[in-house]
Amino acid sequence: MTASQPAKETSTPARPKLAFRPLPVPQVDVRGFWGDRVDAVAARTAGILYDRCVEARMLEQIDPDRPSPGIVIPFHSPSPDEAGEQGAEFTGSTVTTQMFWDSDWGKTIETAAYSLYRRRNSELEKKIDAVIEMYEKLQQEDGYLSSWYQRIQPGLRWTNLRDCHELYCAGHLIEGAVAYYQATGKRKLLDIMCRYADHIASMFGPEPGKKKGYCGHEEIELALVKLARATGEKKYMELAKYFIDQRGQQPHYFDEEARARGADPKAYHFKTYEYNQSHKPVREQDKVVGHAVRAMYLYSGMADIATEYGDDTLRVALDRLWDDLMTKSLYVTGGLGPSAHNEGFTSDYDLPNETAYAETCASVGLVFWASRMLGMGPNARYADMMERALYNGSISGLSLDGSLFFYENPLESRGGHHRWKWHRCPCCPPNIGRMVASIGSYFYGLADDALAVHLYGDSTARFEIAGRQVTLVQTSNYPWDGAVAIEVGPEAPVAFTLHLRVPSWSRKAALRVNGKLVDLEAATVDGYAAIRREWRQGDKVELDLEMSMARLFANPQVRQDIGRVALARGPLIYCVEETDNGGGLHRIALPREARLEARKEPNLLGGIVTLSAIGSRAETEKWGHDLYRSEPPAAEETTVRAIPYFAWDNREPGEMLVWLREG
Amino acid sequence: MTASQPAKETSTPARPKLAFRPLPVPQVDVRGFWGDRVDAVAARTAGILYDRCVEARMLEQIDPDRPSPGIVIPFHSPSPDEAGEQGAEFTGSTVTTQMFWDSDWGKTIETAAYSLYRRRNSELEKKIDAVIEMYEKLQQEDGYLSSWYQRIQPGLRWTNLRDCHELYCAGHLIEGAVAYYQATGKRKLLDIMCRYADHIASMFGPEPGKKKGYCGHEEIELALVKLARATGEKKYMELAKYFIDQRGQQPHYFDEEARARGADPKAYHFKTYEYNQSHKPVREQDKVVGHAVRAMYLYSGMADIATEYGDDTLRVALDRLWDDLMTKSLYVTGGLGPSAHNEGFTSDYDLPNETAYAETCASVGLVFWASRMLGMGPNARYADMMERALYNGSISGLSLDGSLFFYENPLESRGGHHRWKWHRCPCCPPNIGRMVASIGSYFYGLADDALAVHLYGDSTARFEIAGRQVTLVQTSNYPWDGAVAIEVGPEAPVAFTLHLRVPSWSRKAALRVNGKLVDLEAATVDGYAAIRREWRQGDKVELDLEMSMARLFANPQVRQDIGRVALARGPLIYCVEETDNGGGLHRIALPREARLEARKEPNLLGGIVTLSAIGSRAETEKWGHDLYRSEPPAAEETTVRAIPYFAWDNREPGEMLVWLREG
Repeated sequence: MTASQPAKETSTPARPKLAFRPLPVPQVDVRGFWGDRVDAVAARTAGILYDRCVEARMLEQIDPDRPSPGIVIPFHSPSPDEAGEQGAEFTGSTVTTQMFWDSDWGKTIETAAYSLYRRRNSELEKKIDAVIEMYEKLQQEDGYLSSWYQRIQPGLRWTNLRDCHELYCAGHLIEGAVAYYQATGKRKLLDIMCRYADHIASMFGPEPGKKKGYCGHEEIELALVKLARATGEKKYMELAKYFIDQRGQQPHYFDEEARARGADPKAYHFKTYEYNQSHKPVREQDKVVGHAVRAMYLYSGMADIATEYGDDTLRVALDRLWDDLMTKSLYVTGGLGPSAHNEGFTSDYDLPNETAYAETCASVGLVFWASRMLGMGPNARYADMMERALYNGSISGLSLDGSLFFYENPLESRGGHHRWKWHRCPCCPPNIGRMVASIGSYFYGLADDALAVHLYGDSTARFEIAGRQVTLVQTSNYPWDGAVAIEVGPEAPVAFTLHLRVPSWSRKAALRVNGKLVDLEAATVDGYAAIRREWRQGDKVELDLEMSMARLFANPQVRQDIGRVALARGPLIYCVEETDNGGGLHRIALPREARLEARKEPNLLGGIVTLSAIGSRAETEKWGHDLYRSEPPAAEETTVRAIPYFAWDNREPGEMLVWLREG
Repeated sequence: MTASQPAKETSTPARPKLAFRPLPVPQVDVRGFWGDRVDAVAARTAGILYDRCVEARMLEQIDPDRPSPGIVIPFHSPSPDEAGEQGAEFTGSTVTTQMFWDSDWGKTIETAAYSLYRRRNSELEKKIDAVIEMYEKLQQEDGYLSSWYQRIQPGLRWTNLRDCHELYCAGHLIEGAVAYYQATGKRKLLDIMCRYADHIASMFGPEPGKKKGYCGHEEIELALVKLARATGEKKYMELAKYFIDQRGQQPHYFDEEARARGADPKAYHFKTYEYNQSHKPVREQDKVVGHAVRAMYLYSGMADIATEYGDDTLRVALDRLWDDLMTKSLYVTGGLGPSAHNEGFTSDYDLPNETAYAETCASVGLVFWASRMLGMGPNARYADMMERALYNGSISGLSLDGSLFFYENPLESRGGHHRWKWHRCPCCPPNIGRMVASIGSYFYGLADDALAVHLYGDSTARFEIAGRQVTLVQTSNYPWDGAVAIEVGPEAPVAFTLHLRVPSWSRKAALRVNGKLVDLEAATVDGYAAIRREWRQGDKVELDLEMSMARLFANPQVRQDIGRVALARGPLIYCVEETDNGGGLHRIALPREARLEARKEPNLLGGIVTLSAIGSRAETEKWGHDLYRSEPPAAEETTVRAIPYFAWDNREPGEMLVWLREG
């Protein structure tokens, strides 16, 4: 859309009746598997995030009472080698400022917020309050707020949306503000960010005289939706929709903006606007391209707008994009974006395992996107994938104790890949932190007269439906066991539909309501069993899911996985580690007919279920000296023992492998 | 050795009686397989090399009558991406000068020299004469000669041997000079280079006041040996030996040189002197490390010195290094140096196929090294490997018509890897050109009373032994057929030992002298059958080698080749190409029991033998939409057709694969 065409689409329709919104974090208490994870974040990660931001001297950038650090690093930054070194430890000489540090503060605040709700921590709360005060002091009269453009590159604001993360930073601070408000009741940051959002709305929009821009790194869109939901202010929803609608329109904003800077638009480092998904208007996009995190954040914002406006043109585009990702470019772990070069997508079926970039943030972003697709109604197509990304490619990014972080999540390692304390681009630690700490909000979707149960796990939820308060308690040892007992406790009888996901990985499932078997096949639409009734205190729903073990095979077009098999049980993808299986994991082969055995191991890695089978291993001792010979290597029998992928690299360092050779 | 210890080893012993020297190129005329290759170089490559040097504006650097191009590029040069772009075509804007262009002129002159011997070309000869005149004009009074240091960075000569290829360039010009002299009888360049070598000898050596340096890129050592052999001047041999002996001694020359430049030796781009094999004295080295071409050139020089001085301390070190390369770091094609990062070696058993750097120059360098190991006596351990590198990983670098060049020689391609016209670092084209054009000199080793036949192939050699002229004619269709008839024709009866290699890849061999069967087992030492007799005109030796087909398996420690098989016939390694087998080569599997069939195909790729077998292919059509599923893919029968690796990428562009899946 161009300036001369103020568009019809910006009028706000009534919210569709069937829009399912997530429950705010404080309304769901998790226990069991996710309880342990959230406790680790609350006990350690949240404080660690703040401390490491301070160690990295990130306070100096945002604190107007200190001199500006004033160290500008080139936008396109050092080699992975150097990044790796910086990742390991802080050293005075390698600390620099970053244009996206406001976003890391935003996510750190968000993680702290959910953690404070989980577990009071007045010391951490004081620190966060002090950060918020700095932002309050930093904010300009007109509402503008960017530590980078105010303290490092003054005078240049709104001149490079393509590269400089300005609206992206605003988005993360908005998300932090909403979370901090919901968890602590404190409005200060929320008010700051409303003022900033108002300023942004005064700068961008279809009206004459406003900029027709949008951010090179999507994020502001989904953040404005959150802000609109938290404040009830439609104007923020409208602004989010504007950014979505405007993206990729001609004349191209990034071209014009570059020329206004005196730069050649063609001199763009990443060469194509596919990198930031602005190569065409979003409704015309049909391939998942470019930077993986940016893509996930854009599609999340699109799904929110599709949900809120009942916009089927967006929904159709999103389904095409979903299909493309699911059938061409997703790791079996729910990881995505194979290439470090663009931190993103390459070509169809290109899924290298050892060099997989599969950034933690990208899997977290897939969880965001999938959860928002569920806003348009329960559908296991999205929920099953949300679950896979949650349990595998995203939480692998955090050590079990909550103190160390993966940036890349490869599916194979020769023993040199380990979680680090920090990173020069510290986006992943607070991203996985906030996702885990807010896990409760992914469990449910609430519509006007329906509740969808997307995730299972020991937990208690409180919500209001049809004017009644309802408490819903899940009792389960999920994901280790598939038996889920759900008690529905409304304050008074209330009719609504309960949608229960029946995961596609479960080969056998049974559903009982108050002990009475439900015809699951008849009750199930789009992978969710629907139970409509007047619910009363004491009603009990029992879902028994077989925790099926599976051998997974990749489409033969995936060259890296041909002749290989991945093991799964329920939502979990498994891997083998050197510490359980000895070195040279590539030498292991698993026969197709080998029986898989699942075993509960309560003392291993915080309590997991392992899978084991009899396989073989090409032996090296009798092979001798030759590098090549015409006799094949001999094989010896070996017991293959696999653990859930998310739990790897929490013991002795060593090799790891997801895709085992078959044979 | 340090300045204070003028070493005993520099005294010149008599050349050992059993030193085998190669025959100069003009003494061996090849026909058949190698005849075709040499003709392509003489008819096209030699002229192309000169023309592309001119297009790249390399004349401007060396011609003292033109203004200096004066464009200095950073030593550590652009990304492979940029190099790739430059590789494709010349564009005015990307042309720069290079510090190593004298070496490319040296190799271009060398290729032209051998080509002129093969096929008169007065036009090319005039052009080369003009280049030599430029060098004559450029040479300083004191003998110094470097277009880089005289025209681009004057005043800095001998200040950065570590990085700047100064002696390396001298070495290649020396090799060019020797070749041009041998092929055309013209001495001008030889005289120039003798003056320069004398100058170098006045600058470097154990004597007080001389520099204790050596080149960061080895080459001068083997070139000085050639110069000594061509001129009979021992001083050049001595200087070569000095460079070998001095390498890696403490205090380290590159440290001292860096400090003298005011640089921090620790700021070395490649971080370790392993990169240029100066991390320790050469006799203490036991692992093949660093830049692959540098390593091969160093070991070649060491082997020459070991041969010429009968130096067993070098021989022992060389055997350790050979063993290390052969058992840990060599591709089955005779390619080496898997990594683009250091253009060299990484860790043991790390042999990635698709990303293999395996520079053409490195395989050519292995041919150099192996051939020089044969100087110490016939041994199939070296000759078999020389043959493998010759027929596979090196000549793959040149298109069949002699016009296009590989820099990298991967063992797998998705269809995007092709030979290019030129490269910003144009080392490989003239290197493969000169090697092919001089192939005759690798056929034989001549000692005082013995001739070793290292390579077979239709050809005629002329040499003098024990004061007699001998003509030796091989009649054979090798490598397509293993029958070799050798006529030994001395001008008068003469006694000497004929050593005939019996390649280890041949499972059955028979040897007849004048029709009489020889007990091959009894006659064979180190893989060579020795026939000592008084040879007379008309004597005929017949060697029948079975051209055995083989399935080759890699040591199971090579993760990239596990579960895979490579096909070979005789000295040739095979590969499959998309044009013969359809796309998706990774989906092909070859059962262990599948019968291999060899077929002569005279009209294919200039006449080759193909291998074929019945295999299977994982099918994609019935697989459907899913990226992952629990049913394995179905397989369909397919005929696998393989061609010799060297001949790939000479037809329709497409995928290529050496290591086929077994199963």
